[in-house]
Amino acid sequence: MRIAILLYDRFTALDAVGPYEILSRVPGAEVVFTAARPGPVRTDMGSLALTADAALPEVTAPDAVLVPGGPGVADLLADGPVLDWLRGADAATAWTASVCSGSLLLGAAGLLAGRRATSHWICLDRLRALGAVPVPERVVTDGKYATAAGVSAGIDLALHLAGRMAGDEVAEAVQLVVEYDPQPPYNAGSTATAPAALVESLRASDLVVGARA
Amino acid sequence: MRIAILLYDRFTALDAVGPYEILSRVPGAEVVFTAARPGPVRTDMGSLALTADAALPEVTAPDAVLVPGGPGVADLLADGPVLDWLRGADAATAWTASVCSGSLLLGAAGLLAGRRATSHWICLDRLRALGAVPVPERVVTDGKYATAAGVSAGIDLALHLAGRMAGDEVAEAVQLVVEYDPQPPYNAGSTATAPAALVESLRASDLVVGARA
Repeated sequence: MRIAILLYDRFTALDAVGPYEILSRVPGAEVVFTAARPGPVRTDMGSLALTADAALPEVTAPDAVLVPGGPGVADLLADGPVLDWLRGADAATAWTASVCSGSLLLGAAGLLAGRRATSHWICLDRLRALGAVPVPERVVTDGKYATAAGVSAGIDLALHLAGRMAGDEVAEAVQLVVEYDPQPPYNAGSTATAPAALVESLRASDLVVGARA
Repeated sequence: MRIAILLYDRFTALDAVGPYEILSRVPGAEVVFTAARPGPVRTDMGSLALTADAALPEVTAPDAVLVPGGPGVADLLADGPVLDWLRGADAATAWTASVCSGSLLLGAAGLLAGRRATSHWICLDRLRALGAVPVPERVVTDGKYATAAGVSAGIDLALHLAGRMAGDEVAEAVQLVVEYDPQPPYNAGSTATAPAALVESLRASDLVVGARA
């Protein structure tokens, strides 16, 4: 099971690393980070770079693709090498997945036409213009397409995928290894529970995802 | 507020990136990744490297230090440049924090003597030999020392720190931006809820943290 995680300038770090931490621990899984050019790729916050070990053309026919979100998505929505690569890779995958605004790239590549999908709450509506059916849930699957809500939702998505790839017992073992027993000290993680004024101020900021809070 | 995150060979990616995703979004915070040598540092799973932008001697008097865990901890428990740097940095910090087995490094540096602290459930008992008082909770604070349980617990720790550094409203805004509304598809994230046979098999494996599940 070869899993390709896409990197691009101004991606959101946790979108990629949350799923990586889960999926890299599935026995038999081999994860490769890939980008237009190999080498360090900077996150949206600027103070971190992750290394892409392979250029996009080197990664052909992966078994799964995962696309993180981030403000850099805006630079890739027009046709170009990244969307071309996504379409080509998707032709081979058993799973095509995204986190956060990464689903906008899947949509722009034409992969979500008529499919149920999710995204960060701030950009969920933008999926519709790309042909998808937006669903405000944390993890949404439609056939082999698996999409997650904002940033941290990639961990939940990856556990779901680990279970589908390798069975529930493997997914549970990985969950226990990474001690994923979340206990947020605040209750503001969704628009349903956060203070309404906070939701409105973030919505008005029109950040796709990744601007400072 | 300058926050230094330590990197070393075979650290666990999410231990560092979970807190980074939260803390880098606190207004006024500046995060720097630091390691013995600047450049890419490989995680425990091998298929990812994060870039350290600064060598340890370049990072003096940070306001906060965060130490991730991982199997590479075992190579650093004897006195050396990393423990020396930790002691020196700690003399300046408002917060000294760890995730997972990172607390073993704080203990080995002599910073947790008589203090309540936590760690990954597999290595919690090892804190006692380092002079600390092990506490099986997700996030433990004792004065300026804040320690988190395994891997994913760093996200909860960082939200706690964000609230203490910048106030509850800022922490809630960051939580909503990263949509941290966890919904694990399994209930195996703690030794209290995971199947007993799974807990025992992982305990017997004697992984510090980071071996494949």
